[in-house]
Amino acid sequence: MAALVASAHAAIGAAKTTLTEIAAAGLSAPGPLDHTTGVILVTQNIAGFKDVPIAALVERKLGGPKVFLDRDTVMAAIGEGTVGAAKGARDFVYLTVSTGVGGAIVTGGKMMRGATNTAGELGHFPVGFDRDVRCRCGSFGCVEAYAAGRNLAEAYGVDDATIVYAKAAAGDARAAALIARAELALGNLAVGIVNALNPERIVVGGSVAEHEPGHTLEPMRRAIAERAFKVPATAASVIPSALGADVSIIGAALAARDRASGGGQWFL
Amino acid sequence: MAALVASAHAAIGAAKTTLTEIAAAGLSAPGPLDHTTGVILVTQNIAGFKDVPIAALVERKLGGPKVFLDRDTVMAAIGEGTVGAAKGARDFVYLTVSTGVGGAIVTGGKMMRGATNTAGELGHFPVGFDRDVRCRCGSFGCVEAYAAGRNLAEAYGVDDATIVYAKAAAGDARAAALIARAELALGNLAVGIVNALNPERIVVGGSVAEHEPGHTLEPMRRAIAERAFKVPATAASVIPSALGADVSIIGAALAARDRASGGGQWFL
Repeated sequence: MAALVASAHAAIGAAKTTLTEIAAAGLSAPGPLDHTTGVILVTQNIAGFKDVPIAALVERKLGGPKVFLDRDTVMAAIGEGTVGAAKGARDFVYLTVSTGVGGAIVTGGKMMRGATNTAGELGHFPVGFDRDVRCRCGSFGCVEAYAAGRNLAEAYGVDDATIVYAKAAAGDARAAALIARAELALGNLAVGIVNALNPERIVVGGSVAEHEPGHTLEPMRRAIAERAFKVPATAASVIPSALGADVSIIGAALAARDRASGGGQWFL
Repeated sequence: MAALVASAHAAIGAAKTTLTEIAAAGLSAPGPLDHTTGVILVTQNIAGFKDVPIAALVERKLGGPKVFLDRDTVMAAIGEGTVGAAKGARDFVYLTVSTGVGGAIVTGGKMMRGATNTAGELGHFPVGFDRDVRCRCGSFGCVEAYAAGRNLAEAYGVDDATIVYAKAAAGDARAAALIARAELALGNLAVGIVNALNPERIVVGGSVAEHEPGHTLEPMRRAIAERAFKVPATAASVIPSALGADVSIIGAALAARDRASGGGQWFL
């Protein structure tokens, strides 16, 4: 909490403004969380977070503007949908292929929320039967378990997925097999998204997608062209994030502005 | 077309009414189709249907009321959502496990349509990597390819899936292995639906689900309890269809009434 608040003060200082001039703040966090109550329910990739009312805690420590929480991938979708690669699209999916694999679904111009506000966790759609491909979420066969950077690195036995990609490029068969399996998982996910959700665009961000588009966006495009229903396949483009590493921060600012002004139905 | 129109006339006769008393008719068909134009784009399980303006054709031959087309699974979801097992739920999924596997998604009280009105084809979400498990849609690894009645029967080499279930119950290892794989596919789908779509209910209809709940609804429930994120898993119930084999017909009547009266935004 202290680090978050210090970061906010640093940003206010850098913008040469003061806390009293700030009407609202956006807070982007991993999920599942409830954006309406501002509570992080549990996190897969950060230890110790369970039922944490993080929006209220940061708001109190910040001592100023109202703080609006949402999931990092939801904030990213708001950013891409408002000023990025999904601008103008009413039906799109945001995907991040990074340390983990996450997502958010926009349908008919609205964020898909679901019964308990946790919808959109496309990285935990199981797309394979391998019981030994365990996921940090407790399940197996998730897209994340095959294709996330951390999982690729762990499966190969190194610290960083960039090593696995480099080894595969140098002809290492075990690295190549892991990457082929990750590509198949992303292909299954892409085909499933097109058939089940029929988006106009699939915007793909995250560090792995950014550095390895040939092993992420490309196999998704090929799988859609070869395997998805023709009508939704023709309608769907797989495109890179336009906002890069700051996508969730940009989305958080836009979300805070909209929610503070009483709007935000688009993504609420 | 002639059979459809004859069926309509028989229903009008059975109801002791006349064509002039009928304000609107609903037409339920397999997809993908476009409900706004009344055109079947293509069908996976009926030969010869491609870009067929079936609503206009039936309307002309019937010579009376306006005909409103929608996908069989969408009509089923409208039926279950209005007077069936999903009544009162704003976020639910309808699934049919029958000759094929199909679905429809309702989110925030509205039918999810997507960019080209083909959303909801959950039976063609790939949940496995087996390239030899071919689907009639042209892809591989689809839920339908593992778990649909026709596919189970074909994989075992018989005409009817009931034989495969009977063989497995009698101790046949090959039949049992096919059914176990179908259960795993349905489990993957159920976990993915809960994590990605966060529904309050998953209503499961279709002849296979009706006759074999222990091999369809039960493994879905177990997979959700064991493998899905806790918050959406706790919120989601897997329940049988309340309207049985007539679910799409009941939904079609309700859809026609609503669309003819200028309403129907709920499911449009």
